[in-house]
Amino acid sequence: MLAAYERLEKTFQRLDNLQHLKAIASWDEACMMPDGGGDARAAAMAEVSMLCNEIITSDQTGQNLAVAQQEAQSLTRWQQANLREMTRQYHQETCFSADFIEKMVLTNTKAEQMWRKLRPENDWQGFLPYFTDVVAVAREQARILAAKSGCSPYDALIDIYEPGRTASQIAAMFQPLKDQLPEIIAARLAKQEQDPCTFPRGLFPIAKQKQLGTTVMTALGFDFNHGRLDISHHPFCGGVPQDVRITTRYRDDEFLSSLMGIIHETGHARYEQCRPKDWLNQPVSRARGMGMHEGQSLLFELQVGHAPAFIKYLTPLIKGHFADCAPDFDFSEKNILRLINHVAQSYIRVDADELTYPLHIILRFEIEEALIAGTIEAADVPAIWNEKMQTYLGLSTTGNDQNGCLQDVHWPSGAFGYFPSYTLGAMTAAQIFAAAQRAIPDLSHSMAAGDFRDLNSWVATNVWGQGSFLTTSELMINATGEDLDSRFLIEHLTKRYLS
Amino acid sequence: MLAAYERLEKTFQRLDNLQHLKAIASWDEACMMPDGGGDARAAAMAEVSMLCNEIITSDQTGQNLAVAQQEAQSLTRWQQANLREMTRQYHQETCFSADFIEKMVLTNTKAEQMWRKLRPENDWQGFLPYFTDVVAVAREQARILAAKSGCSPYDALIDIYEPGRTASQIAAMFQPLKDQLPEIIAARLAKQEQDPCTFPRGLFPIAKQKQLGTTVMTALGFDFNHGRLDISHHPFCGGVPQDVRITTRYRDDEFLSSLMGIIHETGHARYEQCRPKDWLNQPVSRARGMGMHEGQSLLFELQVGHAPAFIKYLTPLIKGHFADCAPDFDFSEKNILRLINHVAQSYIRVDADELTYPLHIILRFEIEEALIAGTIEAADVPAIWNEKMQTYLGLSTTGNDQNGCLQDVHWPSGAFGYFPSYTLGAMTAAQIFAAAQRAIPDLSHSMAAGDFRDLNSWVATNVWGQGSFLTTSELMINATGEDLDSRFLIEHLTKRYLS
Repeated sequence: MLAAYERLEKTFQRLDNLQHLKAIASWDEACMMPDGGGDARAAAMAEVSMLCNEIITSDQTGQNLAVAQQEAQSLTRWQQANLREMTRQYHQETCFSADFIEKMVLTNTKAEQMWRKLRPENDWQGFLPYFTDVVAVAREQARILAAKSGCSPYDALIDIYEPGRTASQIAAMFQPLKDQLPEIIAARLAKQEQDPCTFPRGLFPIAKQKQLGTTVMTALGFDFNHGRLDISHHPFCGGVPQDVRITTRYRDDEFLSSLMGIIHETGHARYEQCRPKDWLNQPVSRARGMGMHEGQSLLFELQVGHAPAFIKYLTPLIKGHFADCAPDFDFSEKNILRLINHVAQSYIRVDADELTYPLHIILRFEIEEALIAGTIEAADVPAIWNEKMQTYLGLSTTGNDQNGCLQDVHWPSGAFGYFPSYTLGAMTAAQIFAAAQRAIPDLSHSMAAGDFRDLNSWVATNVWGQGSFLTTSELMINATGEDLDSRFLIEHLTKRYLS
Repeated sequence: MLAAYERLEKTFQRLDNLQHLKAIASWDEACMMPDGGGDARAAAMAEVSMLCNEIITSDQTGQNLAVAQQEAQSLTRWQQANLREMTRQYHQETCFSADFIEKMVLTNTKAEQMWRKLRPENDWQGFLPYFTDVVAVAREQARILAAKSGCSPYDALIDIYEPGRTASQIAAMFQPLKDQLPEIIAARLAKQEQDPCTFPRGLFPIAKQKQLGTTVMTALGFDFNHGRLDISHHPFCGGVPQDVRITTRYRDDEFLSSLMGIIHETGHARYEQCRPKDWLNQPVSRARGMGMHEGQSLLFELQVGHAPAFIKYLTPLIKGHFADCAPDFDFSEKNILRLINHVAQSYIRVDADELTYPLHIILRFEIEEALIAGTIEAADVPAIWNEKMQTYLGLSTTGNDQNGCLQDVHWPSGAFGYFPSYTLGAMTAAQIFAAAQRAIPDLSHSMAAGDFRDLNSWVATNVWGQGSFLTTSELMINATGEDLDSRFLIEHLTKRYLS
């Protein structure tokens, strides 16, 4: 009776199996593969990507989707949600011609390669022709997507990463941050001058950092029977839900960056490890969106990892591992808390602290929205970047594009519409943590004791185990009582940095 | 004009890309995957195997093969050889029905699982019903293959691993070994009593063993830009020619087994790394057969690794790495040479030395030939095993089946016809090394100096770079002047163990 829908489940199960191999091979490429294996790996990855695209865009899939839609009323709610996610993926993959995809891949690959070469040389003028091409292709991509769904071009790009959200919604949610953060930052910087912290100096063996990292991962609930921790140049969370691979990188002159990186990726990993068990090989089991994913990593890294209660748990561990590595360092709870929550106005987004980070994002959001809308051109970006950096963070990037508009890989690789997810994630994390605190008695006490079971269990039930069953808004309303709102983040930042 | 052949090259390139992902995922499963990832990985591997099978057995592939055969005279010799290998693979994959493959996989998987459980319990009677099923399925498999090619059923199984060889050829080649080895062994054991060696006792850190292993791999020509060394429970050589993954396992109470394992796998790896560059993604680039592959690993492990000249190079390295780990051990060249070439009559094939190993193989070859022919039954195996062990190696396995006919995974997993490859490999290694010695002036001197470039270059040209261009016989004749002959192995063993 439901033959069409059942055939679709089989098709997507098949795709899931192929994506399993892609995920493991991608992890291998970043963590294990010797350089000489690169060309053969690229060919193998392209092959399986093409194969997945062929399967999903086949006439058969299209016909099954059409028939299943008509029979949707006899499906369960989870099946209906699964069908919605299948349809979404089908539309995303069928709306571009093979010629356009080829042009997009070539343009973006070339621009990213040139960016890797020209950023260290601070050569904006050299990069501009490539960037102009990337912007032109992104506008075309956005127009094609928008024509299909009837929204604005930039909204169509946002929808890739944040299904259901629009630029105007996001701008409205970001506005209070834009208004209030500069003042909070100024107040915090003044306060910080009164309470200076000492920074660790010494030699911190990587084996010990890894040991501390895995201890904390275990406490945070990471399931090592279904995952691993390794090293890569850029930390990430990859693999498959049954076998989640997170990575970090170690410096031996300090221990905090690897640890906080591990905690961040553990948040992503827990989301993946706790996806709905009964639907693991189907689209409905996937994470709800990039902002929701980032929400889980920031829930772990910032809401938990930077909290005074967590530092109470962490301090003796840090001292136990590193006391003899840095005899001059102040291993007190107070100093480690100040160190971890140190704030600075800085040029580089990825190095930014929790308090200044949203302004880095708002700046990029406003620029890319204008770029895709066509109200500014590629050549205008450095001047606008400089102007906004001065306004939001009091820093000039004139003549310093490598630490300005050339700093991120996103635009050179053609990823427009992604940046908002970072701050939507920070907002999500604050709102989820506030709800968890209301629901879990004595959460601070158990965190201070290194017991994160209640938190894991609450988030697993209310967020991770929901997969893509609900829309992002429905998920937030069910889990926290209301749709996403930046006031939770502002309350959190005010409390953490000014009280 | 050659459209059919060209379409076939595209098809096999596609298969090669998918096999790349399978190879990396298999390596990952053995070296990296946490246990909890097993089920999802098995599903993904089954999916891509099925997909490869669908592609190769498609009507389109069959039609292209038929047309290409007719146009074969306009193909180059390498293209013709490639077409021959494509056709071979096509026939192997098309001759079984889906039902039979399912029955075979289920029967063999079940028997292997029961073997893992029952071997430690020495429970032959418990295993017998499963083994009976495995033998029945293997006979059916052999009959199906034989009906297609017109040879005997056991020959058809041998052909899977040793294209072109037959049981009667192999029996003739093995006969001199069967006749002469018992005497050589007796003479060696008597000689050995006069020249005892000391065994290493101490604690040998794994990091140092790995360091020594990679030093030796590098000297032997292993290309770390196209490969890795890792750890797995059962050592193997996997990956793809552009990225060859070898593994070993370490014991910390001695250092020789990991080192010799690494040298063995490096031989396999060099074969893979030196496959014909212009044909890498086509069947004709593949290794010529299992015996030829084993020939390269034994060329490195036994012909090179156990040779006095190599021990001259190795001794100072061993001493440098481990002198302070085992103060009582005699680190002299003489002792290490005796230790490495120590001979013992023993029950277990995988632990057997070079001199007794062929008798372990001949025993298995004779039993499996009779089993597939139906002249003996599954239940007869322990008694025949015992009888042959007494005759060949003077050992009784009565009541000790776990160290007798239950010791190997091959038969429980349905692999009949594979065992001869080990001794064909030892013969191949001896014959190739003899030819290389004739061709390379002062090979012993350069080996003693740790310089294996001339050897690598000669074998790369004459064997590795030939892929599957020639038949095994042609390859041996071109490389060594004659087809495979056991007299080279006998001469080698006589010289090494009795002079």
